Amino acid sequence: MATNPNPKKSPSSKLWGGRFAQSTAASVEAFSASIDYDSRLYRYDIAGSKAHATMLAANGLLSKEELQAIVDGLSEIEKEIDSGDFKFSQELEDIHMNIEKALADRIGPAGAKLHSARSRNDQVALDLKLYLRDQCDLLVELLDDVRRGFATLARTYLGAVMPGYTHMQRAQPVLVSHHLLAYFEMFSRDRDRLLDCRKRINICPLGGAAMAGTGLPIEREQVADLLGFDGVTSNSMDTAGDRDFAIEFVSCCAQIQLHLSRLCEELVLWAGGEFDFVMIEDTFCTGSSIMPQKKNPDIAELVRGKSGRVVGSLMTLLTIMKGLPLTYNRDLQEDKEPVFDAVDTVSASLSIIGELLENLKFNTEKMREATTSGFMTATDLADYLVLKDVPFREAHGIVGRIVGHCIDKGCELVDLTVQELKKFSAVIEKDVYEVISVDGSVQSRISTGGTSMQRVEEALGSAEKQVGIA
Amino acid sequence: MATNPNPKKSPSSKLWGGRFAQSTAASVEAFSASIDYDSRLYRYDIAGSKAHATMLAANGLLSKEELQAIVDGLSEIEKEIDSGDFKFSQELEDIHMNIEKALADRIGPAGAKLHSARSRNDQVALDLKLYLRDQCDLLVELLDDVRRGFATLARTYLGAVMPGYTHMQRAQPVLVSHHLLAYFEMFSRDRDRLLDCRKRINICPLGGAAMAGTGLPIEREQVADLLGFDGVTSNSMDTAGDRDFAIEFVSCCAQIQLHLSRLCEELVLWAGGEFDFVMIEDTFCTGSSIMPQKKNPDIAELVRGKSGRVVGSLMTLLTIMKGLPLTYNRDLQEDKEPVFDAVDTVSASLSIIGELLENLKFNTEKMREATTSGFMTATDLADYLVLKDVPFREAHGIVGRIVGHCIDKGCELVDLTVQELKKFSAVIEKDVYEVISVDGSVQSRISTGGTSMQRVEEALGSAEKQVGIA
Amino acid sequence: MATNPNPKKSPSSKLWGGRFAQSTAASVEAFSASIDYDSRLYRYDIAGSKAHATMLAANGLLSKEELQAIVDGLSEIEKEIDSGDFKFSQELEDIHMNIEKALADRIGPAGAKLHSARSRNDQVALDLKLYLRDQCDLLVELLDDVRRGFATLARTYLGAVMPGYTHMQRAQPVLVSHHLLAYFEMFSRDRDRLLDCRKRINICPLGGAAMAGTGLPIEREQVADLLGFDGVTSNSMDTAGDRDFAIEFVSCCAQIQLHLSRLCEELVLWAGGEFDFVMIEDTFCTGSSIMPQKKNPDIAELVRGKSGRVVGSLMTLLTIMKGLPLTYNRDLQEDKEPVFDAVDTVSASLSIIGELLENLKFNTEKMREATTSGFMTATDLADYLVLKDVPFREAHGIVGRIVGHCIDKGCELVDLTVQELKKFSAVIEKDVYEVISVDGSVQSRISTGGTSMQRVEEALGSAEKQVGIA
Amino acid sequence: MATNPNPKKSPSSKLWGGRFAQSTAASVEAFSASIDYDSRLYRYDIAGSKAHATMLAANGLLSKEELQAIVDGLSEIEKEIDSGDFKFSQELEDIHMNIEKALADRIGPAGAKLHSARSRNDQVALDLKLYLRDQCDLLVELLDDVRRGFATLARTYLGAVMPGYTHMQRAQPVLVSHHLLAYFEMFSRDRDRLLDCRKRINICPLGGAAMAGTGLPIEREQVADLLGFDGVTSNSMDTAGDRDFAIEFVSCCAQIQLHLSRLCEELVLWAGGEFDFVMIEDTFCTGSSIMPQKKNPDIAELVRGKSGRVVGSLMTLLTIMKGLPLTYNRDLQEDKEPVFDAVDTVSASLSIIGELLENLKFNTEKMREATTSGFMTATDLADYLVLKDVPFREAHGIVGRIVGHCIDKGCELVDLTVQELKKFSAVIEKDVYEVISVDGSVQSRISTGGTSMQRVEEALGSAEKQVGIA
Repeated sequence: MATNPNPKKSPSSKLWGGRFAQSTAASVEAFSASIDYDSRLYRYDIAGSKAHATMLAANGLLSKEELQAIVDGLSEIEKEIDSGDFKFSQELEDIHMNIEKALADRIGPAGAKLHSARSRNDQVALDLKLYLRDQCDLLVELLDDVRRGFATLARTYLGAVMPGYTHMQRAQPVLVSHHLLAYFEMFSRDRDRLLDCRKRINICPLGGAAMAGTGLPIEREQVADLLGFDGVTSNSMDTAGDRDFAIEFVSCCAQIQLHLSRLCEELVLWAGGEFDFVMIEDTFCTGSSIMPQKKNPDIAELVRGKSGRVVGSLMTLLTIMKGLPLTYNRDLQEDKEPVFDAVDTVSASLSIIGELLENLKFNTEKMREATTSGFMTATDLADYLVLKDVPFREAHGIVGRIVGHCIDKGCELVDLTVQELKKFSAVIEKDVYEVISVDGSVQSRISTGGTSMQRVEEALGSAEKQVGIA
Repeated sequence: MATNPNPKKSPSSKLWGGRFAQSTAASVEAFSASIDYDSRLYRYDIAGSKAHATMLAANGLLSKEELQAIVDGLSEIEKEIDSGDFKFSQELEDIHMNIEKALADRIGPAGAKLHSARSRNDQVALDLKLYLRDQCDLLVELLDDVRRGFATLARTYLGAVMPGYTHMQRAQPVLVSHHLLAYFEMFSRDRDRLLDCRKRINICPLGGAAMAGTGLPIEREQVADLLGFDGVTSNSMDTAGDRDFAIEFVSCCAQIQLHLSRLCEELVLWAGGEFDFVMIEDTFCTGSSIMPQKKNPDIAELVRGKSGRVVGSLMTLLTIMKGLPLTYNRDLQEDKEPVFDAVDTVSASLSIIGELLENLKFNTEKMREATTSGFMTATDLADYLVLKDVPFREAHGIVGRIVGHCIDKGCELVDLTVQELKKFSAVIEKDVYEVISVDGSVQSRISTGGTSMQRVEEALGSAEKQVGIA
Repeated sequence: MATNPNPKKSPSSKLWGGRFAQSTAASVEAFSASIDYDSRLYRYDIAGSKAHATMLAANGLLSKEELQAIVDGLSEIEKEIDSGDFKFSQELEDIHMNIEKALADRIGPAGAKLHSARSRNDQVALDLKLYLRDQCDLLVELLDDVRRGFATLARTYLGAVMPGYTHMQRAQPVLVSHHLLAYFEMFSRDRDRLLDCRKRINICPLGGAAMAGTGLPIEREQVADLLGFDGVTSNSMDTAGDRDFAIEFVSCCAQIQLHLSRLCEELVLWAGGEFDFVMIEDTFCTGSSIMPQKKNPDIAELVRGKSGRVVGSLMTLLTIMKGLPLTYNRDLQEDKEPVFDAVDTVSASLSIIGELLENLKFNTEKMREATTSGFMTATDLADYLVLKDVPFREAHGIVGRIVGHCIDKGCELVDLTVQELKKFSAVIEKDVYEVISVDGSVQSRISTGGTSMQRVEEALGSAEKQVGIA
Repeated sequence: MATNPNPKKSPSSKLWGGRFAQSTAASVEAFSASIDYDSRLYRYDIAGSKAHATMLAANGLLSKEELQAIVDGLSEIEKEIDSGDFKFSQELEDIHMNIEKALADRIGPAGAKLHSARSRNDQVALDLKLYLRDQCDLLVELLDDVRRGFATLARTYLGAVMPGYTHMQRAQPVLVSHHLLAYFEMFSRDRDRLLDCRKRINICPLGGAAMAGTGLPIEREQVADLLGFDGVTSNSMDTAGDRDFAIEFVSCCAQIQLHLSRLCEELVLWAGGEFDFVMIEDTFCTGSSIMPQKKNPDIAELVRGKSGRVVGSLMTLLTIMKGLPLTYNRDLQEDKEPVFDAVDTVSASLSIIGELLENLKFNTEKMREATTSGFMTATDLADYLVLKDVPFREAHGIVGRIVGHCIDKGCELVDLTVQELKKFSAVIEKDVYEVISVDGSVQSRISTGGTSMQRVEEALGSAEKQVGIA
């Protein structure tokens, strides 16, 4: 074995400190260490190192015994971290160095060989990709739970009607289940986006080394296979500086949280005295420190508010990447906290919303009552005229005038007699009442994706099938 | 035909004004009109209306003659807008109403039938999706041009070396072509993302109507087929309020522009006197109003700066959607300008960068010169030791000390004799000079995606094939 | 006069083109020109040039005649631009070069002397600061109009009660005027912020020249005086690269627009059938293309949605500045459009909201009715107990149980008899009814800033005085 | 004392749980608790409670003994938290409830009286304002340290020259100290902005209660005085929902961090081999895990990258506030983490940069060398011609052609003979060499804020005086 007969002792104790004549300032260590947050990646770091070691051994860079020592040592370290007994050191900067040092302390020289043919630059990219691949899968599961929750609610309340709104004004009556399934669609798209994002995550960066690749005889494809990747990255310089995948992942998160913010806005409104459409169970509300009567939809408010932080995390990442030259720059270390915060926020929000959906009771009476005013079937009346060959624009005008007349009179459409209606259009007959009733209106909307019972049942059936509750 | 014998004249002249007792304030019209920017959508609006009319006729809601009149009328209007002769009216608010009114003026009653079974809510979603589908295709083409530009440059300069940087410090020598192909990879990912986004855009919203679907006997799938969509949306309420596709599209744009910002940062630096790596042709630079000697890389600076507006547009869209209840809210009108600005910015930037790449001359001498200092082959020396069975961490330390020694002596690695080197590690032999030469270093990096000539030639060949210049 | 006996004709026709051997590509001109949007600055550019010329003349760099020619020429150009007759040229890039060229064409050699001792770098900073100083004043005026509107409404509806909300749940009854004056406060803070921002804008950059100052004998303070600045900038390098003032200005804009978004959210809700608190005049609403009965609060929705673009503009500016080295970089050209868009959006929004406030009718009956349910005086009951020496936490618990009892019974607090109430706390006497009535509750809140009539009248008086309608 | 003879035991153990029939779900508690991060506010919460209690006692709502018990109890709790012995409970949600409960446990009934006449809504606003007021002061101090660092460096290197850059191209020679003092100016503006922000923070919200004020006989002004506020807020509803001050504070933070990002960009570049302008001490750099020769300017990179998170925090806050109806909504709880993160990031960054400035060594030789090429005195030559009565635009063109001539010849301006120069302009005489020398150029820039020694000395003197090192 090679030895250095005359090591000029470096005052730096860092694993990278050979050329350094002075040791790192404590303030610098504190400022630059990432171990406080990147310790979260330890499982991925260890899995990656095991695969890397296996490949090194297969290519003659480690002996069988060295490999075994490394794998065993890493397993022990993992258990120690699992159990909370591992002591992380800020001086060792990050999870990578903490584990490598612990390994070397434990198994000696073999540990010092593990970092052959890799750099922290590709190692950290590997860890983050392994982590995010898992998070994609987790979020897909949580999305499925929430989608299941909507399908279940839609089944429970099938048949109930409520006002559909545009501009927050009552517009047309719809089935409550139709409204609920709109959210099912939104979260289905989020799922699709995550799966597309996962494809781009699932390309192995290890072996890009510092940024030029390595001259040691390695097989990157082998590591990729061991870790379940679909392939390896194509350019080592790109590999070192790429965080596209993190940005895309957080973009997906932002869309999810914005969808949740829309849902929660509605829940907050519906739980208020004016709408009174929904009752949230006590267990899912909190009270006021001063007002004894208050029961607040805090969860919905918090989830809505948390859209801020996911959007903020996305902006953080975009700002970091702006104008960075290739390849790795230390700025990239700042990628992890926004990614972790987005993961935590979105997964906690989906999870609590999944529970919340099970703690909602819709006040279907109040909902139906709300459909009976506001001329919500005026479009149906216009469509009735169209089917009697009145051009749509003309029909729209006629119904507008009928509505104006009702407002003056203080009544609803159904309160007018056929005679009164005929004054506005001679083609109106008695059959008009089928059309301008709330149920008639809802039932009539049979276009694909429409709110008629038939269409909603089809959509619900498809939704249930997708989430495995058919 | 139906007539209204006694129309109470509405003081509102709007197409939707039937119920209104007062006309719209001029300031309100000015504030809420979108015609100034959404006129850009006219081709898509007309194509959508033609398909809609065709479907209405197929389902008995228009006669053959009416359909013909509508299609001819729309074609005439399109020509008029093409030629710049069409007079847009702010009073008519938007492109949809401008065209519908022009059609009605031109062909009478048939025109008034066109809006049957649709609303502006689904119409505007349709127009925007048709537009964005085209923009995806356009951006893919522009990305391909830029990728072609990189492949061409990489071919031209194949063999030239330059310093690869990490932390903006010289790190390891690389092939210039390797650096250029890193950008090829980045823009290839952008392409992939756009194509995934396009899938989600390409679902037809028309027929969602206001938000509940319609009771008129329509076939949404027929319209979707006519317009080349892959399917129809599944829930009419979701359809009216969905802008996911716009956000995803602008996210893709932001990533592209950030990639461009990184490239431009490098071009700005390389064009400066310190690096002096690249010469940008005079035609692609501008001067100073005060300093007669200046030749500035303005295009690169502007493209870098424009990352701000694309990120800003993304933030705009995310903010708009936050907390919006279902379904359509007028806030959504604010989606168009950020989308248009993102399209304009990214397409103009890709286009000018494509040209700029053709106006670059690399100063390969200067680049090579820069590789000869800075101990850039230190990693190779460490790898050399590893292959002689020195554990990597130990090797790293040894080389660190050698570098320290060189700094003290004021020389480079290649300037040390074998005897001097041996003092640090006895395993070092004469063959070390092959390894620590710049060319030896570059050639050694044969891992997949590495910078050795062989690997880069493979990567370049693949790149050329992808962009059709093989 | 100096002549060049042997001018080597430069192929570049640019004012800065002396050293250029090739002319600028048309695509580069189109990409980099800013004249399309910075022409808006012409008045400021001309005012700045006149002051600059006056100073140059005072310091012997222009003759009296030359100064007169310049001033007259600039005045003519200004009139021409005012009238729309001036022909802007993209080839001349920006407003500065367009005007300088027009001046030179008009008055000959004297025009060519105007650019002595300045650069476009300080000139553009000057123009932008002069512009923003005016915009601060404009926005302050518009804020005052809106504040006046709130004060007027608060006076009109003085005495009316409504529910105050926390968590969007009815919390405690308040005076409508108290709610309105909350917005008065918000816009007052916006005003303060703008005035602080104006102080930092109002420091003259001219004379910083390219970035090093100038060797020509100028007096910067004189120009500053002529243009009404409070002083001159202290460091020429900082001057060339500073856009703090633009960012701070747009931050102020973002806060204003967010305040407006909160107001508009409330207006949208209040105008809906569930709240029915406010009627917006027909002139300030629009209808639906499909639903004849709809009357939508579009203005409020649009203003709410426009918060997106102002936040986006702020993000744009922040992104642009990230990581820019000193001093001037062409990226800074990208500052103008987000600034202009923020100005346009906020001024148009404040203006239309000012008008909208005059077109609101509150439904005070509905508002009062909404205060009579929801146990809104529960806090008053707790305070009543506190005054009878029950510790607050205990009182809170007692009232909580009373509310629970009411919910079970389906009644309100006032519906309980003293005997029933006594079961929860023996200290409750008949006088409790004064406390738990809506009016009693409102009147009791006499703490500074509270909702009692007395406090609100004081606040309203102060508000009216501030906006000059006392 | 009042007792409740028949308390219907509430299953909720919350301080606010009186009306609740079910206890809070554990997942809801975990999701909504803020104690993990708002415990940071404990000092401010306790100070606020002491002042509140003092006022309550002064107004007869607490006895002298009760006040004493409260004050003593709070002091003990503070000590316990200081020492790390206090056990925070997630079930008690936040710092306010944790402390109030601990107090009640400790001192009994008097503790239960503390929350009279206040709500968590005004209490949390109070705590946050007290905290941010302190942070303003802290950041001002840190800014002063950094400004002191720049003044010290500027003094140390007074006289040294370097290239000034525009567009990252060498433009004109400047004094190194002039460049350093540009940053002094930037951080001075940041200081001003913080102090303006502090004014708006320093208005006391306590007494706004839930959002309507209180009916208990309190004196808000007294509390404000005790806590050092400049006044009390004017409207209780605004008070409960206002977070303007937090947004403004984080805006100030974002500007500071962007200034730091610009500085760090320059340091990163200057520390690289191409510029080689600055040497960062080993203690302030770190190495590479793979490349033994690397010495990376990590601190500068990290600080630059951290601009992302401060900008992200600002975007978070803006998104949270968008469209929130008055008054308090639980979304506001999400304000604290971005505020804390901005404080931590900016204060740590300023602090480490302050240290870093002391660990820089400028390579003044290299800097001077860089001024001798690139025709950096071309503007001086133009100004020379102007002083000989050549109109500036003509002079600019002449010098441009001279530069072109030099490029062809491969020489600098000073290398041309008077005869050669005369061919371009007959007015050029021998005295031109004083003007086109680097030192002559620097010395000539005597305009206010210019880079001549005289001006820089004045500026430096003023700077030193401002930071107390004169």
